[in-house]
Amino acid sequence: MSLDIKKQKASTWFRTLRDQICTVFENIETSDSTFIRTPWSKGEDTPTLKGGGEITLMKGNVFEKVGVNISTVHGIFSEEFRDKIPGAHDSNGEFWASGISLVAHMKNPFVPAVHMNTRMIVTSKCWFGGGADLTPTFEFEEDTQDFHTSFQECCDRHDPLYYPQFKKWCDEYFFLPHRNEPRGIGGIFYDYLETDWDKNFAFTQDVGTSFRTIFPDIVRRRMDSDYTDTHKDKQRFKRGRYAEFNLLYDRGTQFGLKTGGNTDAILMSMPPEAKWD
Amino acid sequence: MSLDIKKQKASTWFRTLRDQICTVFENIETSDSTFIRTPWSKGEDTPTLKGGGEITLMKGNVFEKVGVNISTVHGIFSEEFRDKIPGAHDSNGEFWASGISLVAHMKNPFVPAVHMNTRMIVTSKCWFGGGADLTPTFEFEEDTQDFHTSFQECCDRHDPLYYPQFKKWCDEYFFLPHRNEPRGIGGIFYDYLETDWDKNFAFTQDVGTSFRTIFPDIVRRRMDSDYTDTHKDKQRFKRGRYAEFNLLYDRGTQFGLKTGGNTDAILMSMPPEAKWD
Repeated sequence: MSLDIKKQKASTWFRTLRDQICTVFENIETSDSTFIRTPWSKGEDTPTLKGGGEITLMKGNVFEKVGVNISTVHGIFSEEFRDKIPGAHDSNGEFWASGISLVAHMKNPFVPAVHMNTRMIVTSKCWFGGGADLTPTFEFEEDTQDFHTSFQECCDRHDPLYYPQFKKWCDEYFFLPHRNEPRGIGGIFYDYLETDWDKNFAFTQDVGTSFRTIFPDIVRRRMDSDYTDTHKDKQRFKRGRYAEFNLLYDRGTQFGLKTGGNTDAILMSMPPEAKWD
Repeated sequence: MSLDIKKQKASTWFRTLRDQICTVFENIETSDSTFIRTPWSKGEDTPTLKGGGEITLMKGNVFEKVGVNISTVHGIFSEEFRDKIPGAHDSNGEFWASGISLVAHMKNPFVPAVHMNTRMIVTSKCWFGGGADLTPTFEFEEDTQDFHTSFQECCDRHDPLYYPQFKKWCDEYFFLPHRNEPRGIGGIFYDYLETDWDKNFAFTQDVGTSFRTIFPDIVRRRMDSDYTDTHKDKQRFKRGRYAEFNLLYDRGTQFGLKTGGNTDAILMSMPPEAKWD
């Protein structure tokens, strides 16, 4: 399969997955709210970054704020970034990237926040990366267990070595050292899967479809729970930690903002409101 | 004057200024709230950082959240940091630092938020740095003018070259490139003042006393303004930008968190609540 076909298959999948997830979420949402799509493109003002994407945002009664972004961009990495990206020196900085990124902040504080992201990146190398992780304010063992089981089964369908490795990577990545606390209960995180494109693409698709099933299950289970202002406030403080992680440590956020990415798309992940002591 | 005496004079001044400012703020505050002092010290768990400080925090009806921190610490910079700090290689990484740092987030959205910080740092060199800047949600030309005039007069009392340079530095520093917008209306920002200790200390003291006068004047002028939920919400969005700046760009925040500083003291600057679109 030519590289062009691979790029097309991947970017088409990310769009399809976006459409599927939005439909599922809209069916759960109890208000009249639907996803609003805002296309964006980089043009002549950014000579080192071309392409574009779509911000897809819904603000409702179940989903207080959920953003699903897709983008397909290409350009030239600055010298500074080439050291950090595999194969970027050999491509003279040229890269291509396509992906989907989703963050949901839920109205009911007993429903966990969630993040899911998968992407294909091409320099002189070509690889997939991504993952999904859950951030409850109030942890329910049942939710934690089901989320982990779903991604364990997903991993095991493709390679028995994946799950232990990708679960550990997730725990290490989504950690706030200055608070000495994890962002949430983890999930999976993977990157640099480059040895077998078909296998890696099939796995990446499975991560998306596993997410599309398990997260809605958890939402339906908790969305009608009674809660008080005290519960809601606790969620706002948890969201403060979420904002800290994204702005201080998240690679995608730092990378996106420093390479001239679309600020609205990148900071779509920020919670609708947050509190600090 | 010996270096030990200089260190003692500076750290004593920061404590005195803290006490003076807290008294002025408590006299303005209309609720029963007063400043709560929480001393902290770094000890055996952090071999590369010793010393301590005091977090001084008030949450009231005028001052929704105001923190005034003082600290005096010493230790050894990691190799990574030595490249970034003047004189740190020649001191084999040894440093001493003392300072005051203040951030006020105000209940009434017509009263601007403010930040003031001054510090003395010793490696193989010895210098002062600091500044003050104002972040209104709704800008009043009178407040902007008075704040700038106060620090211009302060600078001019010490050196005619200071103000143009330190005002520009402030505008450049407190800027959010990803939003293409300034954090607020600026003020002054200075660093590496090392040529004449007595002159630099006198200037640093004057920055503190100028702040102690001008900010309370602005607070009294605006604190009884009528406002609506819409005004308050606009302030919460402005605070989202404030959080973005501090976590993404602020040198003190990044530096503090990465050198094992006191997280509660460093993140005292975070707004009590913030919103994002």
